Amino acid sequence: MSWIEHTMSGASEDIARRAKAAFYSASRAVPSGNEGDKTRCSVLYRLRSLLDGSRTEVQKANETDVAKAKDAGMSPSLIARLDLFSKPGKWQGMLDGIEQVAALPNPLEQCTIAKRLANGNSTDKNGNLDLYRITCPIGVLLCIFEARPEVIINIACLSIKSGNAAILKGGKESTHTAAVLSKYLRQALDESNALPSDLIQTVETRQDVAGLLNLDQHIDLVIPRGSNELVRSIQKQSSIPVMGHADGLCCAYVHEDAVASLVPETIVDAKTDYPAACNALETILVHKQHLQTGLVKKIVQALISAKVTVHATEEIVASLDATLQNDTCMAKAKQDDFDTEYLSLDVAIKTVDSLDEAVDHINSHGSHHTDVIFTAPVSGETSGSETQNQAAATFVRAVDSANVFVNASTRFSDGFRYGFGTEVGISTGKIHARGPVGLEGLVTYKYVIQGHDSQQTCGAFTSNTQGQEPRSFVHTDLPKRYPPL
Amino acid sequence: MSWIEHTMSGASEDIARRAKAAFYSASRAVPSGNEGDKTRCSVLYRLRSLLDGSRTEVQKANETDVAKAKDAGMSPSLIARLDLFSKPGKWQGMLDGIEQVAALPNPLEQCTIAKRLANGNSTDKNGNLDLYRITCPIGVLLCIFEARPEVIINIACLSIKSGNAAILKGGKESTHTAAVLSKYLRQALDESNALPSDLIQTVETRQDVAGLLNLDQHIDLVIPRGSNELVRSIQKQSSIPVMGHADGLCCAYVHEDAVASLVPETIVDAKTDYPAACNALETILVHKQHLQTGLVKKIVQALISAKVTVHATEEIVASLDATLQNDTCMAKAKQDDFDTEYLSLDVAIKTVDSLDEAVDHINSHGSHHTDVIFTAPVSGETSGSETQNQAAATFVRAVDSANVFVNASTRFSDGFRYGFGTEVGISTGKIHARGPVGLEGLVTYKYVIQGHDSQQTCGAFTSNTQGQEPRSFVHTDLPKRYPPL
Repeated sequence: MSWIEHTMSGASEDIARRAKAAFYSASRAVPSGNEGDKTRCSVLYRLRSLLDGSRTEVQKANETDVAKAKDAGMSPSLIARLDLFSKPGKWQGMLDGIEQVAALPNPLEQCTIAKRLANGNSTDKNGNLDLYRITCPIGVLLCIFEARPEVIINIACLSIKSGNAAILKGGKESTHTAAVLSKYLRQALDESNALPSDLIQTVETRQDVAGLLNLDQHIDLVIPRGSNELVRSIQKQSSIPVMGHADGLCCAYVHEDAVASLVPETIVDAKTDYPAACNALETILVHKQHLQTGLVKKIVQALISAKVTVHATEEIVASLDATLQNDTCMAKAKQDDFDTEYLSLDVAIKTVDSLDEAVDHINSHGSHHTDVIFTAPVSGETSGSETQNQAAATFVRAVDSANVFVNASTRFSDGFRYGFGTEVGISTGKIHARGPVGLEGLVTYKYVIQGHDSQQTCGAFTSNTQGQEPRSFVHTDLPKRYPPL
Repeated sequence: MSWIEHTMSGASEDIARRAKAAFYSASRAVPSGNEGDKTRCSVLYRLRSLLDGSRTEVQKANETDVAKAKDAGMSPSLIARLDLFSKPGKWQGMLDGIEQVAALPNPLEQCTIAKRLANGNSTDKNGNLDLYRITCPIGVLLCIFEARPEVIINIACLSIKSGNAAILKGGKESTHTAAVLSKYLRQALDESNALPSDLIQTVETRQDVAGLLNLDQHIDLVIPRGSNELVRSIQKQSSIPVMGHADGLCCAYVHEDAVASLVPETIVDAKTDYPAACNALETILVHKQHLQTGLVKKIVQALISAKVTVHATEEIVASLDATLQNDTCMAKAKQDDFDTEYLSLDVAIKTVDSLDEAVDHINSHGSHHTDVIFTAPVSGETSGSETQNQAAATFVRAVDSANVFVNASTRFSDGFRYGFGTEVGISTGKIHARGPVGLEGLVTYKYVIQGHDSQQTCGAFTSNTQGQEPRSFVHTDLPKRYPPL
């Protein structure tokens, strides 16, 4: 037993070491600026072409995985995720996605701060001291995800584009498909003369992953994509920072001044557009005044018409007419309905006495993912005047969530819809990246100081050596561009 | 025993709960925009005035702490850190620091992304859908630091300015001083009508802290400032993200084309300007060619003149003349000298065969804090032409550190010198904030979507209901300013 553990840990450590070595080697070998981006993208184009020519081979492997999953009695929805070919356009979409990632702006060596710290001293006018902050890769990413095999290609492309190394662990259901995809990934890397083939590695077993989660000297970030249980268990086990979201218990609050014609349809969309998604609506809070205005009834009616089971408090049920009360889609809400991420055609609804109560409820029962207020809209174009809807302003400020919406479906909370080009995931953490995470979430930054033609000592700023005045910091802005090293 | 543990844990949980409640309450009560900043700053100005009028009381408490520390045989350097009054200007500097933090630009509700996701549909030209990303507080910070009592005020001010709640734990040596400072902090909060007095709490015992480190449902970020052991032990214990630096093993590499007149004095500055600092130089790597050029000798000579003990490899010692070889400041380097953060007037020096070897050494033996290459400088003003020093470009790209310098002292790696106004700490982590961290490190962001006068459903982008064409995303930029809610 101890021998097995030792081997496991040794294998994990070897994988992690090779990933870090590949990261360092690529950082050194790939040139700066646009040339570097071209080098990385050439691997992506080659990968696309290799996969394009191997459709038959991939499809055969994928059919084996799908057949095994069916034999094992996997659910139709999981099988649909696993299957790369039955749905028209899915395979082509994966190939197109490779080119889309390649076409994104270079996320590296973007200059976000540039300033002159100090001018040259009085005798040496060329001795400027300049500070730059430039984006750079994070290092080694460990990406853990479930059934969908195209995620391997998607994450591999994002990692390569952003200059990172990655260790990928897919679901065991997709083993055969993953093996073929990984083979072509490695070939595309091998054929490039700049990127080491260990830059993207795939691992297969849970033991491999368990061994990797504490190698914080080699691995810089863990990105789990999958069920709550997966993400939570990884957050618990890992000594490495984890970027992921654990829950999506999204809430809507319908304020006193909500416009009745805008609310029901948008709520139905938030619930039904894709009920299994993390940005689907799960809880509705309605200002109690709407028991009188009839808006509660309209909302319930619209949900029931859309075949949503409405878990309502007694107070709400009592306000409805008998037909609605007796509808098979009406259910009596229990307390824990307001802590439930249904991920199905179910929703919980209750009234609140005030905006404050709604905010408190959302901060304590929600999951800090996406929440929305329905309130009087600000008309037309942005006007530049002062705050125009105090309730909306307070809601946005006080709700402690990654995405806070005013009069819009929670389903808009998505990297593609936000225009980020692609999505690494949606983070409910507050540190590093929050909300839908694009390529920006896969880079960090470094500070670069460039000293020009003179000694650049800190001492010269405090003491007047050689009869000169001490230098002083000027902190003036320079054009934000990559330093001309 | 189990009763005590239970009580402890209950006390910690109560502190954390109250901190989160105070954070939420402040987020709701304090108005948006500049008005909110004014409210927060008014507390800072009141605090300054309260402390200004209580110098005698604080001084008395501080003298008690200092006397106890002397009785306990604490080192003179620790006593100097503890003592708020003996060094001229220190107390005044603390008071001025409060105003400096208040005067910093408002870090909250800064708009970093603004775009129109979609125009109104064909029948409703006002139905735009707009996305904003605005900065917001992180939530509850747990700040743990050692002897220096003024850090309580410094961190409290940064937390208030950035809209966060904070739980502060100072060193036990400063108990009496901390108690008086905390009293006035609480009074300043009490007297404001907007900020709850629990917004800043101080805790006293290590047990309190241990209990807090796993309350990730209430606490969002842990910021330790202090020794390596402190930071490491907290990183190990905490289930909450930790922002801190564990080591400062800074390295210098002297490349083949380094300009001899720029190197020795800058290296001496990096080592001796403040040897106990995390950005002090610890390891020097010299291209072997400089055994011939005489630069090695000049560097060693300069260090020895500055009373630095030079731990040199045999090869380097052999290249020196007898006077230097026999100097009492010369020591024979052992392998572990190159893994040592001396924090004293000691430095390790060896030759390397190439830039690549230097980069490998720094990535594997350094601490990813601050490293510098000495190489031919780029003259004068930035020229806009292509890369002008390949060695510098490669070093900056390939060295995996928060701060990577060209021809400058490692001691410049500091928030004040970078012009950030103030410094929360220097992070060697790569996630969230890296390098010197100013107020920016205490905020995160949220995405705000504002739907204008129409139903904003995702469904309208895929299906053509009511005979209309599906809407499409436009993703056009809007002016970056706080949304006019």
